[in-house]
Amino acid sequence: MQNTGKLDATFTPTARTQVERLPERGVYDRAEIYKILDAGFFCHVGFVVDGQPFVIPTGYGRSGDKLFIHGSAASRMLKSLSGGVKVCVTVTLFDGLVLARSAFNHSMNYRSVVVLGTATEVEDREEKIEAVRAISEQIIRGRWDEVRPPTEQELKATTVLALPLAEVSAKVRTGPPHDEEEDYQLPVWAGVLPFRSVPEAPLADPRNLPKLALPKSIENYSR
Amino acid sequence: MQNTGKLDATFTPTARTQVERLPERGVYDRAEIYKILDAGFFCHVGFVVDGQPFVIPTGYGRSGDKLFIHGSAASRMLKSLSGGVKVCVTVTLFDGLVLARSAFNHSMNYRSVVVLGTATEVEDREEKIEAVRAISEQIIRGRWDEVRPPTEQELKATTVLALPLAEVSAKVRTGPPHDEEEDYQLPVWAGVLPFRSVPEAPLADPRNLPKLALPKSIENYSR
Repeated sequence: MQNTGKLDATFTPTARTQVERLPERGVYDRAEIYKILDAGFFCHVGFVVDGQPFVIPTGYGRSGDKLFIHGSAASRMLKSLSGGVKVCVTVTLFDGLVLARSAFNHSMNYRSVVVLGTATEVEDREEKIEAVRAISEQIIRGRWDEVRPPTEQELKATTVLALPLAEVSAKVRTGPPHDEEEDYQLPVWAGVLPFRSVPEAPLADPRNLPKLALPKSIENYSR
Repeated sequence: MQNTGKLDATFTPTARTQVERLPERGVYDRAEIYKILDAGFFCHVGFVVDGQPFVIPTGYGRSGDKLFIHGSAASRMLKSLSGGVKVCVTVTLFDGLVLARSAFNHSMNYRSVVVLGTATEVEDREEKIEAVRAISEQIIRGRWDEVRPPTEQELKATTVLALPLAEVSAKVRTGPPHDEEEDYQLPVWAGVLPFRSVPEAPLADPRNLPKLALPKSIENYSR
């Protein structure tokens, strides 16, 4: 997954990806951005139809310097697809609430990546298999080898879009609140309430065959 | 928060909000949609600049039949703001991974609300206070009364957008996987890996005054 080849190690901010507000939160380092992308597994895809923006959640997978997204979740988008569709893919990992001493300085800790570009449909059969495998492995590593692989018909019924990781930026906020200097005298508890998205006990499908053990992909699940 | 007044209890799907793919997942009931909105606290806002979609994560608050969003996170959007900006606000709550017996039928359990419309800047001072309070209370109930309220200057420095909850739809997926009938014979464990976003132990700001107790807003925190 770490094949960055000869690409620049740092994304050059464009007028569109330059972080304008709170620029100290801007991140352009490719390795750091890929780490955020690899820690997530669903994104919000934005696209435009008749001047109206749409934002749809869907799964994704990173493979090298490409992001693959499930087009199926965005059938509306694909209507306007001909030679590619302009998208914005945003991946947000929420890390915690930042409680300040003033209402104004409350914030959130998060890692967020924004990818701009033109998404194109993956048509080549081999690349499509690589893409759906990448999406599957991104969501739950090891699952692909435990299940029935897609049939030709299922592959045809799956639309996958590819988006080059070329125009990319990230924003990261960590740490305690930043209060006004005079507010540090207030008797108000301030700090961070960290959050994690955690798996709970697996629920077996009532239709499972008897005595099936929990699969390795779940036993070893971690993010 | 439940003031739906004389509005219809059900949103009428428009050509833009009708759930086209897997229509059985579509939800248009106002009370059910508000329940999803009230369970979340950050959204992804989509808007268009020069034909390019942008998708930015930000906090929100629901108050009656309006959604308030922090404009500050979307300074880029506000450049094109004059009499309102076309947006799509999407709130997604991720509930779990759905593990099927085939790669193709893997899915996610989620609740997702999509709001389309024109967001306008909140300029009236009283409405703006209501709006920032609604956003604050949505994120962490009770916090507003524990902290220093905004000064006039801070209020001016805060941009808030209001979006009517008029053109709205939701998609909800719950329950076990839906496999092909013949796949139920496969010796593959299938089921759901539920997820929750949970708070961890609070981290006090090193600059807190000595002996400050944990605030009620955190002690009583629940979603």
